[in-house]
Amino acid sequence: MSVNLPSPLFGAVEAGGTKFVCAVGRGPDDLPAVTRFPTTTPEETLARTLAFFREQPTTPVAVGVGSFGPVDPDPHSPTYGHITLTPKPRWSNVDVAGALREGLGVPVAFDTDVNAAGLGEHRWGAAQGLDTFLYLTVGTGIGGGGLAGGRPMHGLVHPEMGHIFVPRAPGDTFAGACPFHGDCLEGMASGSALEARWGRPAAELPADDPAWPLEAHYLAYGIANFILTLSPQRIIVGGGVMRRPRLLPMIRQKVKTILNGYVKAPTFDDLDAYLVPPALGDRAGVLGALAMAQELA
Amino acid sequence: MSVNLPSPLFGAVEAGGTKFVCAVGRGPDDLPAVTRFPTTTPEETLARTLAFFREQPTTPVAVGVGSFGPVDPDPHSPTYGHITLTPKPRWSNVDVAGALREGLGVPVAFDTDVNAAGLGEHRWGAAQGLDTFLYLTVGTGIGGGGLAGGRPMHGLVHPEMGHIFVPRAPGDTFAGACPFHGDCLEGMASGSALEARWGRPAAELPADDPAWPLEAHYLAYGIANFILTLSPQRIIVGGGVMRRPRLLPMIRQKVKTILNGYVKAPTFDDLDAYLVPPALGDRAGVLGALAMAQELA
Repeated sequence: MSVNLPSPLFGAVEAGGTKFVCAVGRGPDDLPAVTRFPTTTPEETLARTLAFFREQPTTPVAVGVGSFGPVDPDPHSPTYGHITLTPKPRWSNVDVAGALREGLGVPVAFDTDVNAAGLGEHRWGAAQGLDTFLYLTVGTGIGGGGLAGGRPMHGLVHPEMGHIFVPRAPGDTFAGACPFHGDCLEGMASGSALEARWGRPAAELPADDPAWPLEAHYLAYGIANFILTLSPQRIIVGGGVMRRPRLLPMIRQKVKTILNGYVKAPTFDDLDAYLVPPALGDRAGVLGALAMAQELA
Repeated sequence: MSVNLPSPLFGAVEAGGTKFVCAVGRGPDDLPAVTRFPTTTPEETLARTLAFFREQPTTPVAVGVGSFGPVDPDPHSPTYGHITLTPKPRWSNVDVAGALREGLGVPVAFDTDVNAAGLGEHRWGAAQGLDTFLYLTVGTGIGGGGLAGGRPMHGLVHPEMGHIFVPRAPGDTFAGACPFHGDCLEGMASGSALEARWGRPAAELPADDPAWPLEAHYLAYGIANFILTLSPQRIIVGGGVMRRPRLLPMIRQKVKTILNGYVKAPTFDDLDAYLVPPALGDRAGVLGALAMAQELA
């Protein structure tokens, strides 16, 4: 007589600067519980996270966290799993992974929000089978992560791709909205930058607004630089700003113009399959955190 | 009675667009034969390469090649080991690795010139013990390679870091010298670009020439972008243009100004140990090719 043991439940936390998303489950079609709540103080936010997992019928066997940052994703470091020196008030030096590990008594995997989303797309979405790809998010800020040669991108700290510098559009005199760099990519093309430049949120700008060709200029130069630096097999572009329907096609066209035939690969004849939206949509982050927990177990 | 077998000899080829360097040996202090000759036609150049190895007292057991490009470094590809579509006349679609493998009857490892130089520095030079670092060369052209997460940087094809786009220096109206992109980094800051802009080779420009602060501007923006995109643990900067004594300190200063404290790591307090010249000097490329041959055997 055989006994069918239920497959274990895993936990996932998408720790965003604006909201936390927590889930338990086994994959995109098996998420029995999901919750989201605003990011307030570390104490309150981590307490709500712990409460969510504790109220589940069974405790998850491991938890994955994809976090806003900057973070310390180095498992050999004494501050592994911490948010480090973030401009977000009260969140500097907060041990997110430690709070969950101690509070739940289970192992916790920890990485950047964008590496987590990239892992989600790698496991179940638009990056399946690839070993070098990027996941970019263009929202309140701009960030990038993914795999290089099959490994999550870390290095000295972790990439801060949103802050690279690209050429200005001709005649553009906007000073930029990044408190560190002014007119870096995030300072010119993030949701915050759009709102600072045009006086209203990106979602409220009309489809024919001159904001959009300019937005495509900056994002296309950023993406061209990432292509030339990393040679990714595919780039997934998500985030709130990318919900604008005509934006991704405009970016594809501009990237082709910028590269001017220099990168020779069949996929560059038509960037429709190269520059793509996340197959998992808004769930890439939390599902990536789930994949991280599963890899840990 | 024991017999001391001599350790085997390895072969190395630094296949440059201007010259080839070939060597046999076992490491930086054990290179019994080295030769260099100009890169002419593929037939003549590869024949001289084969002749060099054939005239050695013992045939090397494996050969490594670091090649100018673009190349195909994917061992699973039918055109692995080829130079692909290069602007260099007659060298497109040349099977460099195949010519050596068939001509010598030994295994051949193949990668970009900059990945090879990076491997040389990783084995014997300034990148020992690091798993994510860059090797940049600023010479006739600009190129970059190295390791990301312990793996040579490949991806879809391989990086073409020299062709990223960075902000112009205020008031700079030079159109740029890159035939593909005009004012990309290589178009503004390579040795060819310096000569096109100033009317004489970089080596002939005086130490106090305004060319040098401008050169530091472009290279510093390029390096800042690489830091933000890849988070390398160290960046090694070689190539003919970098022989100018005061250039690297100027670049370090400018990189600090550009990043403006955004990247938090102890090594960023003082970039002297972060942005460094190649410890192997001009021999990084050929020694890296030797390391590749040794890893193959």
